[in-house]
Amino acid sequence: MENFNSGESIRMLSKNTVKFIKSLHQKKYRNQEGLFLVEGEKSVLEVLSSSFQIHLLLGTADFFITHQAALKAYKGEYIEVTQNQLEQVGTFRSNKDALVMAQMGSEEPFGLDQNELAIALDDVKDPGNLGTIIRIADWYGIRKLVLSPQSAEIYNPKVIQATMGSFTRIRWFYEELESVFSRWNRPVYGAFLEGENLHEVTSLKPGVILMGNESKGISPELERCVDRKLTIPAFGQAESLNVAIATAIITDTFKRILSA
Amino acid sequence: MENFNSGESIRMLSKNTVKFIKSLHQKKYRNQEGLFLVEGEKSVLEVLSSSFQIHLLLGTADFFITHQAALKAYKGEYIEVTQNQLEQVGTFRSNKDALVMAQMGSEEPFGLDQNELAIALDDVKDPGNLGTIIRIADWYGIRKLVLSPQSAEIYNPKVIQATMGSFTRIRWFYEELESVFSRWNRPVYGAFLEGENLHEVTSLKPGVILMGNESKGISPELERCVDRKLTIPAFGQAESLNVAIATAIITDTFKRILSA
Repeated sequence: MENFNSGESIRMLSKNTVKFIKSLHQKKYRNQEGLFLVEGEKSVLEVLSSSFQIHLLLGTADFFITHQAALKAYKGEYIEVTQNQLEQVGTFRSNKDALVMAQMGSEEPFGLDQNELAIALDDVKDPGNLGTIIRIADWYGIRKLVLSPQSAEIYNPKVIQATMGSFTRIRWFYEELESVFSRWNRPVYGAFLEGENLHEVTSLKPGVILMGNESKGISPELERCVDRKLTIPAFGQAESLNVAIATAIITDTFKRILSA
Repeated sequence: MENFNSGESIRMLSKNTVKFIKSLHQKKYRNQEGLFLVEGEKSVLEVLSSSFQIHLLLGTADFFITHQAALKAYKGEYIEVTQNQLEQVGTFRSNKDALVMAQMGSEEPFGLDQNELAIALDDVKDPGNLGTIIRIADWYGIRKLVLSPQSAEIYNPKVIQATMGSFTRIRWFYEELESVFSRWNRPVYGAFLEGENLHEVTSLKPGVILMGNESKGISPELERCVDRKLTIPAFGQAESLNVAIATAIITDTFKRILSA
């Protein structure tokens, strides 16, 4: 494989580069290379101005012209490509802007301070849900996310897309949640269908908001770690809410109460 | 085309039936035939027990055995098929249960009573967002939805899927929202990035929750119809929230205040 980090300018998109980028559509090669893809105007601009290390930037002529000022600080490799080429190497059906190959960050476990809120995900599998939850966390200023080992992979292009750049502002790691919770020793709040009515809760402490798998909810083993069960009150007949929707409503309530 | 409503039993899945069902993947043929598809175990069971008229039910042997009791009331046409056949005629990548061909309901304009809440969508384009919003409406007991003519089509299989059966409990129609709002003459609440802080709002009246397009928000023409602008407070750096997420948080706040 070519070394994209050589400091030399690459002028043309070679067949080998195309092949290399396309290999990163798969988790196996992402992990092997320690690289992942970021696609689309907004996400690419966000990752370029983040602390992620960039190995290659592909952009259309339009993209380079429109974002001349924002790109001034970028000193790495880049190739000007056509929209067609972008769509061929990337995962987006339509991408008239840019694509970046970035280096995965470290996913070292971190602690949780007394005044901090974190989100914990127990086997959330859908990439769109995970990405949306990261965007919600970022909106509400929650910077810490912990995921069970079977949860979706954040570097999946669908997750990255759904975060709309918010993955650059969140820290995360994957680990069995029981161990994390016992180490953190902070209150764990779980979303259940039969808990305290969220609309009647008046006092909450910073801690962990635990959300469960799309179909199975929170596993029985983790249920034992939950200090308070919370329920979004239903007024109609839908059996459940999507996990990202539920995360948003619960997080909103935490911020509503904690910052009042 | 065959008449699936003849009352006679169809034993085999004919080539013509396959072709007919597949044509309903496209909006053009859905509108021409007045029929749409419902796929997957939960959604099919929901539509079978709803007031929608069913023209044909395809199910696997497993589905018919598992849901014998629930299917007793169903007197229409059905064909037993394999999982493979289901996946061939439908839009789901994986469907081991059932698919239904149902007749579109009427979409006659309705009024809005003084004590009712409705959701209005200004050009919400993404089928997943629209379906999720319908599921949220159903969760919160909101039965009325009005959509601008350029919004996504509810009978799109992706919308139907995302509603998880909730489309059977919601009424809707498509019309220019300005006309609807002036006819209803009820308070219109719009989601904006610079309005009243939703966490500080203490009094709300029943009326219309207006949500805008995924990238453009609420159009300037409609902004003029808005009585109160509401904003979900941001604590981090995400530029925006997904429209379905925002709908959920605002709707939750309405129910929190109105039912207190």
